[in-house]
Amino acid sequence: MWAGRFTEPTDASVEAFTASVDFDRRLYRQDVAGSVAHATMLAEVGVIDEADREAIVAGLRGIEADIESGRFEWSSSLEDVHMNIEAALTERIGEAGKKLHTARSRNDQVATDLRLYVRAETDAIVEALRRLRGAVLDLADREADTVMPGFTHLQAAQPITFGHHVLAWHAMLERDAGRFADVRRRLNRLPLGAAALAGTSFPIDPRITARLLGFDGPCENSVDAVSDRDFALEFTAAAAILMTHLSRMSEELVLWCSPRFGFVSLPDAFCTGSSIMPQKKNPDVPELVRGKAGRVIGSLVGLFALMKGQPLAYNRDNQEDKEPLFDTVDTVRASLTVFTGMLAGLEVDRAALRDAAGQGHATATDLADYLVRRGVPFRDAHEAAGRTVRCAVESGRELEELDLGELQAICGEVVQSDVRDVLSLDGSVAARAHPGGTAPARVREAARAARARLGGEQVGGKQDG
Amino acid sequence: MWAGRFTEPTDASVEAFTASVDFDRRLYRQDVAGSVAHATMLAEVGVIDEADREAIVAGLRGIEADIESGRFEWSSSLEDVHMNIEAALTERIGEAGKKLHTARSRNDQVATDLRLYVRAETDAIVEALRRLRGAVLDLADREADTVMPGFTHLQAAQPITFGHHVLAWHAMLERDAGRFADVRRRLNRLPLGAAALAGTSFPIDPRITARLLGFDGPCENSVDAVSDRDFALEFTAAAAILMTHLSRMSEELVLWCSPRFGFVSLPDAFCTGSSIMPQKKNPDVPELVRGKAGRVIGSLVGLFALMKGQPLAYNRDNQEDKEPLFDTVDTVRASLTVFTGMLAGLEVDRAALRDAAGQGHATATDLADYLVRRGVPFRDAHEAAGRTVRCAVESGRELEELDLGELQAICGEVVQSDVRDVLSLDGSVAARAHPGGTAPARVREAARAARARLGGEQVGGKQDG
Amino acid sequence: MWAGRFTEPTDASVEAFTASVDFDRRLYRQDVAGSVAHATMLAEVGVIDEADREAIVAGLRGIEADIESGRFEWSSSLEDVHMNIEAALTERIGEAGKKLHTARSRNDQVATDLRLYVRAETDAIVEALRRLRGAVLDLADREADTVMPGFTHLQAAQPITFGHHVLAWHAMLERDAGRFADVRRRLNRLPLGAAALAGTSFPIDPRITARLLGFDGPCENSVDAVSDRDFALEFTAAAAILMTHLSRMSEELVLWCSPRFGFVSLPDAFCTGSSIMPQKKNPDVPELVRGKAGRVIGSLVGLFALMKGQPLAYNRDNQEDKEPLFDTVDTVRASLTVFTGMLAGLEVDRAALRDAAGQGHATATDLADYLVRRGVPFRDAHEAAGRTVRCAVESGRELEELDLGELQAICGEVVQSDVRDVLSLDGSVAARAHPGGTAPARVREAARAARARLGGEQVGGKQDG
Amino acid sequence: MWAGRFTEPTDASVEAFTASVDFDRRLYRQDVAGSVAHATMLAEVGVIDEADREAIVAGLRGIEADIESGRFEWSSSLEDVHMNIEAALTERIGEAGKKLHTARSRNDQVATDLRLYVRAETDAIVEALRRLRGAVLDLADREADTVMPGFTHLQAAQPITFGHHVLAWHAMLERDAGRFADVRRRLNRLPLGAAALAGTSFPIDPRITARLLGFDGPCENSVDAVSDRDFALEFTAAAAILMTHLSRMSEELVLWCSPRFGFVSLPDAFCTGSSIMPQKKNPDVPELVRGKAGRVIGSLVGLFALMKGQPLAYNRDNQEDKEPLFDTVDTVRASLTVFTGMLAGLEVDRAALRDAAGQGHATATDLADYLVRRGVPFRDAHEAAGRTVRCAVESGRELEELDLGELQAICGEVVQSDVRDVLSLDGSVAARAHPGGTAPARVREAARAARARLGGEQVGGKQDG
Repeated sequence: MWAGRFTEPTDASVEAFTASVDFDRRLYRQDVAGSVAHATMLAEVGVIDEADREAIVAGLRGIEADIESGRFEWSSSLEDVHMNIEAALTERIGEAGKKLHTARSRNDQVATDLRLYVRAETDAIVEALRRLRGAVLDLADREADTVMPGFTHLQAAQPITFGHHVLAWHAMLERDAGRFADVRRRLNRLPLGAAALAGTSFPIDPRITARLLGFDGPCENSVDAVSDRDFALEFTAAAAILMTHLSRMSEELVLWCSPRFGFVSLPDAFCTGSSIMPQKKNPDVPELVRGKAGRVIGSLVGLFALMKGQPLAYNRDNQEDKEPLFDTVDTVRASLTVFTGMLAGLEVDRAALRDAAGQGHATATDLADYLVRRGVPFRDAHEAAGRTVRCAVESGRELEELDLGELQAICGEVVQSDVRDVLSLDGSVAARAHPGGTAPARVREAARAARARLGGEQVGGKQDG
Repeated sequence: MWAGRFTEPTDASVEAFTASVDFDRRLYRQDVAGSVAHATMLAEVGVIDEADREAIVAGLRGIEADIESGRFEWSSSLEDVHMNIEAALTERIGEAGKKLHTARSRNDQVATDLRLYVRAETDAIVEALRRLRGAVLDLADREADTVMPGFTHLQAAQPITFGHHVLAWHAMLERDAGRFADVRRRLNRLPLGAAALAGTSFPIDPRITARLLGFDGPCENSVDAVSDRDFALEFTAAAAILMTHLSRMSEELVLWCSPRFGFVSLPDAFCTGSSIMPQKKNPDVPELVRGKAGRVIGSLVGLFALMKGQPLAYNRDNQEDKEPLFDTVDTVRASLTVFTGMLAGLEVDRAALRDAAGQGHATATDLADYLVRRGVPFRDAHEAAGRTVRCAVESGRELEELDLGELQAICGEVVQSDVRDVLSLDGSVAARAHPGGTAPARVREAARAARARLGGEQVGGKQDG
Repeated sequence: MWAGRFTEPTDASVEAFTASVDFDRRLYRQDVAGSVAHATMLAEVGVIDEADREAIVAGLRGIEADIESGRFEWSSSLEDVHMNIEAALTERIGEAGKKLHTARSRNDQVATDLRLYVRAETDAIVEALRRLRGAVLDLADREADTVMPGFTHLQAAQPITFGHHVLAWHAMLERDAGRFADVRRRLNRLPLGAAALAGTSFPIDPRITARLLGFDGPCENSVDAVSDRDFALEFTAAAAILMTHLSRMSEELVLWCSPRFGFVSLPDAFCTGSSIMPQKKNPDVPELVRGKAGRVIGSLVGLFALMKGQPLAYNRDNQEDKEPLFDTVDTVRASLTVFTGMLAGLEVDRAALRDAAGQGHATATDLADYLVRRGVPFRDAHEAAGRTVRCAVESGRELEELDLGELQAICGEVVQSDVRDVLSLDGSVAARAHPGGTAPARVREAARAARARLGGEQVGGKQDG
Repeated sequence: MWAGRFTEPTDASVEAFTASVDFDRRLYRQDVAGSVAHATMLAEVGVIDEADREAIVAGLRGIEADIESGRFEWSSSLEDVHMNIEAALTERIGEAGKKLHTARSRNDQVATDLRLYVRAETDAIVEALRRLRGAVLDLADREADTVMPGFTHLQAAQPITFGHHVLAWHAMLERDAGRFADVRRRLNRLPLGAAALAGTSFPIDPRITARLLGFDGPCENSVDAVSDRDFALEFTAAAAILMTHLSRMSEELVLWCSPRFGFVSLPDAFCTGSSIMPQKKNPDVPELVRGKAGRVIGSLVGLFALMKGQPLAYNRDNQEDKEPLFDTVDTVRASLTVFTGMLAGLEVDRAALRDAAGQGHATATDLADYLVRRGVPFRDAHEAAGRTVRCAVESGRELEELDLGELQAICGEVVQSDVRDVLSLDGSVAARAHPGGTAPARVREAARAARARLGGEQVGGKQDG
């Protein structure tokens, strides 16, 4: 390709070291789409003629079909997806093929391909998130009345409902969808036309190419267009936050599946056993998701380390942006899919949850609140309730099991028999009925509102490369 | 504070290990603002009476004034900023002070303080970015005509203008400002009202508190409200991308200041010397900025590692979210400020830049384009231009120094004497006159448009906590 | 300091941005020790005379004493610890002070100070590790007979002893001590003498300085001596692995303290309560340790990002190496100390552990092994034991509760009444009596051997700077 | 495999999500070696008979041969490399195959395979490092006399020799080799025998297996044996430090190849050109190495994030340890190989280097040292030399170009005509003749000593699995 200026061929070890076609061939569809749009623009502004354009487009479509059917022969001596396709084009259509690269460089070409790729995958992730969010909302509805212990510090804190808990998952995933939408909006500018870094001396009109590829417009600056990998950083950061959420949800599922918790069980079809221990049924899926979160965080760090030291404009270091991106896409999409299936089959042991909620004096806050409502300042009420808990702990009982006399001895005469209502699980949960609260009615309402927002979200743009 | 339930006091080493007041006292202003709003809401819904509210607000304002004047005594046995302020309040105003913590927990209190803090700092960063962007645009205007070598792979690629190059910096910084705006929008929900994790049995109205503190509304879910640190991750990710940009700009400045480049010089006031080498004048500021980018990336990783393994809801691990956030804020703000001053004093050596642009056969692409315009397919033109470069390299000349006969011998008769125009620096630069191109007129136009966008941006919200 | 070559003073914002004395003053002891050794060497080779040496040493000792008693006045316009001390020296002793910096630069000076610092802190960490390991071995001895469920995938796997489990912690910590010993050995070379990067034209003998400071010898190469921060990377990597271990141990403690597990309880003195929930007793210490592990991982990443892009030799970026190092030292030392105290007070609920071990069919592997010993190939035995577990699960029983007829119906006639022995917890544990196994006798033996190794380890070197 | 206990088969999406055979098949050689050793030990202690052992060994060797010749059929429904091989074995040799898994679990099996793998790859890396170090030493010898500017802050600092500079590279790589040796030593313990986590009830002797596989002995604790991934963290940390070194060396090569430096050129066979700019010859290899350093740092972070939150013992998260390890091995080995070839062909432009060394007043330190030797205290000498530089800068000259009168006017009468010797490049370099200094004779001596150490290093152990 650059034989003109060189006196020796590339060393074989170097060819192997620098070739990217083994992984960047994944961009073939974007590469063809970008080239079709580029050729169309070149023809519209008169840099190539219409016959050349037609030959190029037909040739590219044929190549794309061959790739999809597995008939295309990739060569690593042609370095990358771009040169493989262009070389095949010239072989197939002759002279016209040699004109395709007019007014562009691989620098703007690969930047365009990557943006098209990240945009399409962002849309796919938002769609997969939508399905997972639907599964979470179904679960919330199903378990809106199920009382469970809410934990802080993994200690029993206060009774909540299972539906309320998983709506916290939904809130996390909804923000994730918002972040991916922002990624998409910000990346949706066309680099093509920047050529190597300086633009081109041909009278191109990148607005045409942008329109054809569904971009909101061309990049503002040609040097930036080929140097910028913000979209990769921002996409991977959004993915790392999402995976951190899935990891936290997985952490909870692994805990809840443990016999010490026994809150839920996963369907056999989502578990595996042991090669040595015949009784084992392991929550492999959430464990792996948790592990895979580390992988995406690692990819994000790799990308930062990659970019941090580079002067403008394009440097070959940037070839290393692809594998972390591709791996992140695969990891996120697979994790979302398998999570959605797993949640649909989750069995919730309501009796065990209620049982657990009744242990650990989780209604002590309700007792304090009760005292406050009878005029005790909060700090004093908190201390009296604390002494009540110590009395219960020392005698091995729950708060409900203390009799009125004992309560009055510690907390004073303000305690009356109506205190029973606030010490019960259902009383405690029902009392938290403000917006965003854990009362069953509020949970159903919140799930309904979330489902309405989910339905109203717009995925992606109208057209795509 | 929790003496009621405990039988022994906290171990001194544990108190030292767990106390956070040494660093979280930085949140005092947010803590007071949050408490004032909380008390106001409690009074509005009737949980406390108006007299208590007035005592609380007056007490808090007094404490805030004492903190600002350095008269407040912090105690690490009171653990954190929240308990220090609340304890002082009760000491000052008596019983009313004990009522302030009704219907809230430190879990929602600290989440509120942190969001108020990050929101205010986000606004400050966007404002500092605006000043830096102004300095970049000034530089772009000043050097719109200055020809320099554009680099790819740190090899001379094509001539560009200095103004065009620094507009690439502006494009990076403009996206940064956009990311911070998204962070702000997404975090602007109120956690207060979530209490420990389950909401509260008091008839609170968090919409009132949200309005008082300038939030767009309360968080949707109480468990999420106290568990979520997305805003910290997203803010730090945006900061890490921004610092990566400043690092890349710094990398260029360090290169350009090197005597081997000699493109620019920094004012003496922005450099330091050496304790041993009397001749040294070192570009310490961009070097340090480059180094500090690593620090922010490290903080981001620390936050991810912090969050990845946590089940919901609040765990004490989260105390570790503050120092990386605070350090990131300080680092970003200081870097932006010093960078702005440094760019204002940057001296550009136009002669050296033009000289460098003339070396390295940087107009070879123009020769290839010239051939294409005369009907040679691009790939053949590229190869002919490559052979021309080899001829020039071997005879130690630049392209402009080859005579017409030599050019024709390599590239064929299509080359005519008008080829001179395209081989010159000014011709090359002027030819790239499409939108986003490097031609001086385009640079001025792009700077003007950027300045208009900069003026139109809205910083922050209307009110603040 | 470098006024000779400069025409304007440093800008105030730049002074604030670049000054490091606020954090590097922590190195004062190393700085004084290095300067004393340097002056002594200079006198020995005749570059300064004996009187100057005496004046310098006396002056430095006086400064050190003033710093330790808080009387020294630090100035950030003197940039760093080195210039603060040198300026004070010259002020105190006059001309002789100006000779101290002969044949050195701040580049080799700070590299020396840092190595002395990391070496001393490495020794302190190894010593703190020794104390923690002692506490772990005490616990292992104390609970050598305590049966508990061993977990894989957080599912009950097989019965083990608590002592055996915590010996796994010891094995992790023992490798950590080995890694710190390697760090110490590798860093123990003297950079002083490298000057700025090229060595010096004075007839120095760095072997003298090395001996005085307890180094194994001078660095081999002067350019490397001032550029190298491997010791910082390697130290922080060792610290990050150690903190990962403490985080895993903390994860287990948090789980075991949860009421759902109820395996252990922490002393009240190592827990804190809640500002809202009167019943709470939270395992703050292990939670914070877990959180702090993220911080050290973040510091490691920051250091890698810092170093990755730097050409040799010294660049100002390197100033950013100190804060992550200092923070890592503080974090690791505090975590080790508080962990040691916490383990000493850990209460183990032996009945709860045994109870838990009896749930979840954890002796199914023993059943399979029993069948193998009676001639059934392992894979067939595994499957038969699996069917036995399914039978037990479906009828809500443990394996011990199945009668012999049921076992024979599933596993065949090879099962005889002696199968009871292998299905019991004590039988299962006692059977694992090979070296490294979980049988109580083996645990005691392993703890004894570990204690012997612990006693035999050599901490640090003979002398120290 | 665990059909006995389960009521439904694994979901297809879960099978795809959890299967690892696509990447862990790379461990087939280690898996066979481990199984051969395990079967041999089982026969020696009498758990299986000799005939079974022979059948197993022969079967495994046949499978290994089939894998190497590409005839083996991998199945992802058999999950991983272990089950694929074991299933094939049973298919081939019948009953005896079902006995192989006696007294082991996949947990200890995969830990053993991974340690064997990392050990072998560590040896290969140390060997590749040896070759690269040889190439560096050749270069140091070749360019021992070549004067170049030494840089600090990328500003000319002092003249050094090229040979001296690249010996700094050698020092970095030598420490890397030491770190890998430590990794190898620490990991060389056998996990097999730990079974799932608790050891086994069969009378195994892991010392036999350890000996057969070249381990120094069995792991001390069975729970640790299956949980520990320190060797992966430590190996990857060592690799990340090594890649950071290669990245720094690459940074220098990219700079030196830039036309603004022009210090070296890479052979055409190690460069590539541009698809648009016919004149380009890009240093792709060092750029890619620089980029790949980020990838390894990312993998290290991924592993830390993976391990940090896990309770003991084995969790499925750990499956995610393999890909970062494999990728790190591939990246490091390829980078070392291509770097070695590239250095062998490096052309050094001695004239350009000398020329550059003469610019930038790099002998100002020599002038200050000269004054000190004539009795001026260093700080005063430094200031006088600084004023001399300012005079030279202002008149556009180098120090050598100032006449004696000018020097005396600034520095005083102590300056005599012999000052010329210290202001010359060769004088400056020759003067730095202490051990570790830059004088040509010292460089040759240091290279000789390094070569002797290199020859004396022991790679790996005597035997291997």
